[in-house]
Amino acid sequence: MKLKEIVQKSETPAGKTFDVLVLALIIYSLFSLSVETIPDLPKDFYKFLKISEVVVMVLFTIEYILRIITSEKKLAYIFSFHGIIDFVAIAPFYLSLGIDLRGIRAFRLFKVFRILKLTRYTKAIERFGKALVLAREEVIIFALATGILLYLSAVGIYYFEHQAQPEIFKSIPHSLWWAVATLTTVGYGDVYPVTAGGKIFTFFILMIGLGIVAVPAGLLASALSKIRRDMEKGS
Amino acid sequence: MKLKEIVQKSETPAGKTFDVLVLALIIYSLFSLSVETIPDLPKDFYKFLKISEVVVMVLFTIEYILRIITSEKKLAYIFSFHGIIDFVAIAPFYLSLGIDLRGIRAFRLFKVFRILKLTRYTKAIERFGKALVLAREEVIIFALATGILLYLSAVGIYYFEHQAQPEIFKSIPHSLWWAVATLTTVGYGDVYPVTAGGKIFTFFILMIGLGIVAVPAGLLASALSKIRRDMEKGS
Amino acid sequence: MKLKEIVQKSETPAGKTFDVLVLALIIYSLFSLSVETIPDLPKDFYKFLKISEVVVMVLFTIEYILRIITSEKKLAYIFSFHGIIDFVAIAPFYLSLGIDLRGIRAFRLFKVFRILKLTRYTKAIERFGKALVLAREEVIIFALATGILLYLSAVGIYYFEHQAQPEIFKSIPHSLWWAVATLTTVGYGDVYPVTAGGKIFTFFILMIGLGIVAVPAGLLASALSKIRRDMEKGS
Amino acid sequence: MKLKEIVQKSETPAGKTFDVLVLALIIYSLFSLSVETIPDLPKDFYKFLKISEVVVMVLFTIEYILRIITSEKKLAYIFSFHGIIDFVAIAPFYLSLGIDLRGIRAFRLFKVFRILKLTRYTKAIERFGKALVLAREEVIIFALATGILLYLSAVGIYYFEHQAQPEIFKSIPHSLWWAVATLTTVGYGDVYPVTAGGKIFTFFILMIGLGIVAVPAGLLASALSKIRRDMEKGS
Repeated sequence: MKLKEIVQKSETPAGKTFDVLVLALIIYSLFSLSVETIPDLPKDFYKFLKISEVVVMVLFTIEYILRIITSEKKLAYIFSFHGIIDFVAIAPFYLSLGIDLRGIRAFRLFKVFRILKLTRYTKAIERFGKALVLAREEVIIFALATGILLYLSAVGIYYFEHQAQPEIFKSIPHSLWWAVATLTTVGYGDVYPVTAGGKIFTFFILMIGLGIVAVPAGLLASALSKIRRDMEKGS
Repeated sequence: MKLKEIVQKSETPAGKTFDVLVLALIIYSLFSLSVETIPDLPKDFYKFLKISEVVVMVLFTIEYILRIITSEKKLAYIFSFHGIIDFVAIAPFYLSLGIDLRGIRAFRLFKVFRILKLTRYTKAIERFGKALVLAREEVIIFALATGILLYLSAVGIYYFEHQAQPEIFKSIPHSLWWAVATLTTVGYGDVYPVTAGGKIFTFFILMIGLGIVAVPAGLLASALSKIRRDMEKGS
Repeated sequence: MKLKEIVQKSETPAGKTFDVLVLALIIYSLFSLSVETIPDLPKDFYKFLKISEVVVMVLFTIEYILRIITSEKKLAYIFSFHGIIDFVAIAPFYLSLGIDLRGIRAFRLFKVFRILKLTRYTKAIERFGKALVLAREEVIIFALATGILLYLSAVGIYYFEHQAQPEIFKSIPHSLWWAVATLTTVGYGDVYPVTAGGKIFTFFILMIGLGIVAVPAGLLASALSKIRRDMEKGS
Repeated sequence: MKLKEIVQKSETPAGKTFDVLVLALIIYSLFSLSVETIPDLPKDFYKFLKISEVVVMVLFTIEYILRIITSEKKLAYIFSFHGIIDFVAIAPFYLSLGIDLRGIRAFRLFKVFRILKLTRYTKAIERFGKALVLAREEVIIFALATGILLYLSAVGIYYFEHQAQPEIFKSIPHSLWWAVATLTTVGYGDVYPVTAGGKIFTFFILMIGLGIVAVPAGLLASALSKIRRDMEKGS
């Protein structure tokens, strides 16, 4: 059957074209989702986005139905990882037709799940998953160490800065925000120590912290390099 | 004896349950310690936190007594690393009953030592320690180099910026705060050079500095990867 | 022919001198291009820069003609990578003589293309290209992952912060600016979350994000080290 | 001769004590140099620092004389790397006695050269030097690439932001300051793009830039790991 080859296989020219079309639809759809939040655009543009959203949804539905039809084991597809994602990508649209959900702000958040449709076209998650498994233990260890470090940083800075800046370092949970912004070196500049004690504490926490927070990325890079080397040897 | 198996061993189901319960207590206790610093919470919530603190402390005490009872060499446990930690985790509570220490701000800091009880449940410190030993020399070298670099940066920026911003770059120790915030790339934005000389100096210091401050993390990551590889070969 | 050796070869003393002179001209020319944008310089200085620009252009033209003359296959040189660059470096100057383009702001941007003349003197791009090829797949994977992460971060922060800071987190595209500044840890401080939800979201995004955004640099470093090792074995 | 062993050798107890004393003097002296710049300290403290500076200088002079006396080849020591450093560490002090240089601000900068005396006690520079030699080519390549990237970033942002923020992005050299603060991810927050074009440009520059600026540190870490491995094999 010709249709099956187009939908299910990506080696044939027709199959490739089908894949590229679906991919383009996903990307346009994500782009449209973000653009429609911009205020002060011309009214016609919003109307265009609304109509294109309906078109995209109809096309995604056709794709979903095609995938069910062309599957040999239809139920297996429907309850597979990709089957559920394909359903989740269109469900919020049909739900919003039945019930009036447009007013609910959190509703648009569900629409973003269509980004998961990208997983069919990229080996990124698979490869990234392998690297995570390889460097699993160390990543967990450093995630734990990061957690403990953030907690201790927040406790420490709270004791040093609470009296000098009672509004900013209001409590230990509030101080955690400082710990996050500092140890990741983002440093927005909305919270920073002003006392000598707090500054010296920040120095020591940063000296220890950079050696902890930055390590997982190095481990992942090293694990990914190893996976590539193993694959080259195997091939 | 059944009790001994529960407390001392973690392979049996009962032993595992015991471990998980203690772990949950530690985490709840750390959470409670930080939440109680939030002002403007309902009064009943503070009361609840106070009562739960007493309950946690009683349970930690029971755990401590159980560990002493079930140890074959009781004195060896009491003066072991974990024994001292278990004692230190409950001591501040009983001290505060005898003497009224609630008013002393630094007192709560001692309570945070209970975070050390986590060391029993994680191999993180052990593994991290091994990596530090492996990369010891380079880490020390780079810690030294970082120290020297921070000092020279502070001296340099002081000479460039002291006249333009006498309040911010008041002295070399004050300028160190700028050096820390800059070389770690946190960059809060509370101190930055404004003169052309200071900016050019910052450029050169950053170009050299990033190659020094960021290296220890890479070394640790590399050492941790090696430890994993050696363990895989050994097993 | 003596001239050919000077222009085409860099091993002979005369050839080296020629190369160094052209290199110095390029660097002076780039320096001059940037300095002439400084306002409030003495008028004579601008005049000097204008004249030196003409001199540099004449010299670049002589170099271009010499390279054509000394090439055995003249057409091959003219349409080679370096030939096109050498032409592009002088073309804007002669264009501006014919038509009065000085008023067009974007015009100076073309002049910057002369920076490409540097490619003849550095193996940097070649080596960097090899490393990119070696780590190609992972770099693409992480570039994709970074793209998806930025998108999801912008969507998330928009929902958390839009109501609290409607002017700053105006729309999802506007929120992307926050996502870029945060995940690269630049953290200018012009946009940052103020709600508890937004701060907790930032924490999780940063914990995941740092392990993704920082990895490509590690992969490139690892690939470059491998290239050096292979070259050492080969030699 | 006993004195020679104390001064020249560091294996004997007496020699070790001598080394530790000199090291302590250097660190105290650097500490004192920075502390004396703090304004608003009690007058007696300044007096104490001044006197201690004289004492340190006398002791450094004695050390210098001892090293000359105990050297077998006196002239060789005087003109050796360490000999010159030992001289440079005391010279500014004696110069300031002859001529009144206290008023010259730059004079204190010379005093900082005594930090070089630390080189005798650390193998850091040697090891760091070896790693630099091993990763020499790539570090140069990336230093060049960083330079070109900074230049192009400054040119780009100047064209995007000059009209919107003429005071901050005054010229290309002024825009370089933004390029430095951004590509090193310091992000003080004193300069940042406000136009949509400038923000999109920043995004692309950061995506490319992080993969270039962060690589040299990874290369150094990798080279240092290799040096350790080679040394372990050799021993």
